[in-house]
Amino acid sequence: MTVRELRIPLGERSYPILIGPGLLSGNDALAGLARGRQVAVVTNDTVGGLYEARLAASLAGAAALVSIRLPDGEAYKNWESLDRVFERLLRERFDRRCLLVALGGGVIGDLTGFAAAVYQRGVDFVQVPTTLLAQVDSSVGGKTAINHPLGKNMIGAFHQPKLVLADVGTLRTLPPRELSAGLAETIKHGAIADPAYLERLERDLAALRACDGAALADAIRRSCEIKAAVVAADEREAGLRATLNFGHTFGHAIEAGLGYGHWLHGEAVGAGMVMAADLSCRVGLLDAPSLERLRGTIAAAGLPVRGPAWPFERYLELMSVDKKARQGTPEFVLLERFGATRVQSVAEAQLRATLAACTG
Amino acid sequence: MTVRELRIPLGERSYPILIGPGLLSGNDALAGLARGRQVAVVTNDTVGGLYEARLAASLAGAAALVSIRLPDGEAYKNWESLDRVFERLLRERFDRRCLLVALGGGVIGDLTGFAAAVYQRGVDFVQVPTTLLAQVDSSVGGKTAINHPLGKNMIGAFHQPKLVLADVGTLRTLPPRELSAGLAETIKHGAIADPAYLERLERDLAALRACDGAALADAIRRSCEIKAAVVAADEREAGLRATLNFGHTFGHAIEAGLGYGHWLHGEAVGAGMVMAADLSCRVGLLDAPSLERLRGTIAAAGLPVRGPAWPFERYLELMSVDKKARQGTPEFVLLERFGATRVQSVAEAQLRATLAACTG
Repeated sequence: MTVRELRIPLGERSYPILIGPGLLSGNDALAGLARGRQVAVVTNDTVGGLYEARLAASLAGAAALVSIRLPDGEAYKNWESLDRVFERLLRERFDRRCLLVALGGGVIGDLTGFAAAVYQRGVDFVQVPTTLLAQVDSSVGGKTAINHPLGKNMIGAFHQPKLVLADVGTLRTLPPRELSAGLAETIKHGAIADPAYLERLERDLAALRACDGAALADAIRRSCEIKAAVVAADEREAGLRATLNFGHTFGHAIEAGLGYGHWLHGEAVGAGMVMAADLSCRVGLLDAPSLERLRGTIAAAGLPVRGPAWPFERYLELMSVDKKARQGTPEFVLLERFGATRVQSVAEAQLRATLAACTG
Repeated sequence: MTVRELRIPLGERSYPILIGPGLLSGNDALAGLARGRQVAVVTNDTVGGLYEARLAASLAGAAALVSIRLPDGEAYKNWESLDRVFERLLRERFDRRCLLVALGGGVIGDLTGFAAAVYQRGVDFVQVPTTLLAQVDSSVGGKTAINHPLGKNMIGAFHQPKLVLADVGTLRTLPPRELSAGLAETIKHGAIADPAYLERLERDLAALRACDGAALADAIRRSCEIKAAVVAADEREAGLRATLNFGHTFGHAIEAGLGYGHWLHGEAVGAGMVMAADLSCRVGLLDAPSLERLRGTIAAAGLPVRGPAWPFERYLELMSVDKKARQGTPEFVLLERFGATRVQSVAEAQLRATLAACTG
């Protein structure tokens, strides 16, 4: 199986994404970036134990090498973890030409990327995502953030990596639940941008859930391509990029309401996409067969298709602190059909009906 | 006296600096930015009490208006203050289209700018600097930051304001010591970039220290022009911009060693410029009469011309954690003559000689 390469075209901030098996054990691109620099690998206790040693060959040429291990979990994507990174970098006298390497899932990638965005007003970093979600979602777009006690991803920056290494071999140690959570984002990409890709995902679902390397690499590449096309057209999320939030207004509400970490992000997005598609039907956009097809695909991926049984007011309260909210009134990314989206607010009655139909 | 306007040309991030008297009391540019938006004024206890009410007319059209008052002083340019801003913005449900207004000196400007850089991955902000230092230094360049217990300005971002209002009337309530500290930066601009401006400053020093409005406005405009020209040529501080750090490697060491807040930043830069000029002589660049002239000008501005009496090793330790350090070995911005600089490392013996001559 060959390594797939995708280049994200962002002018002087362009960078490559390499996708394939065995990328961690000796990679020329990473070795080239690390050579002669102060390098810090930021990872968590779980992933670090499994994979950090494999990076040794690529990082052998570093002028200094430190390992920073954070506790595993979304609950630690916070200021305290970020400050542990800053404190270590400062104690080791890392200067602004240092390189950070994020080895882990979305939590490690978002936090390390944000650390790189603001340490000494910005240093280079490399993403080595080890979950399917991170490989298809965090690899493209440059979004970095930590959570605040009052809201998810509320403190962050746009900061592009210099390189992304998506090693599909790391997905074999991923719990099946997390693999499904990653599939939620691939389904999202198909639904909002590419009906043919959605069909291929539906056909390959069994192979993907069985961790077939070629099927995974193809899906990761296509998802990264789709996200890259959206991001290249609209790097600062003014309009088009908002379509990537399909399922996320409901999804973030579910995550926030349950407390982060109870449902995985992709699980919340899975149920959130069904809710957003249901709402799309109610406002007269999507047809009913498409809604049912999407619901079936999400269920077949091993994801929830219903939100928690909360009163309408609870959902509304949770959604109105979402980043996409316009001064308190939530907006939704809706589907006109597979491959075509629209962002708009909806009547309260329609939102009530969707929540009644899709929760509990 | 007319309002002076300077436009900072940064493509889509261009913004105007307005300089003059009475700008706070009803300003069309600020009113235009505030209209219909959620607006938060971030200030400190001292400046807020003196000037916040004057902004009322300009902010009358805001959709929501909150005031966030932080304790006064460099010691509060930290994570705790930043989090007070985030917490208030999140509790008030400020979305990403909100506007922050920084009313105060460099501490408030740097901290509020950084809050704006990372709140929801970036929101707009306006600088209303009320110290001479902030008016000539923080108005241009987009540098924002907070301090870390292990280093000054170690956590930050580049984020440009939408507007800067430099009201020279606010300088009349500034302690004379702080006015002198601001003059340090104007002298720096003359020394590194414009010998004619340095001469004018020397001639006008008495008027400037007496808070003459026209003399101040002219100096602020010329200093902003010089800094803007440097920044426009090199927005990310790769080379040319480093010349603005003339006097700052020593200056930051003095500030860090004394504990922030004992000497004002401009005072440390004053002594730091004498030390950097002395070092420039020792490595065979600057001539001795220019060193003596600069020393005299800095003294006449009411600034210290000697650093604290610390051993060489103490200075070296303090300088090697400076952001400009190359993996532990400090570099210096040196003067070849007034208007011409060079960045280089120096022999330890030369550095020892400068510290022996210019401290204690």
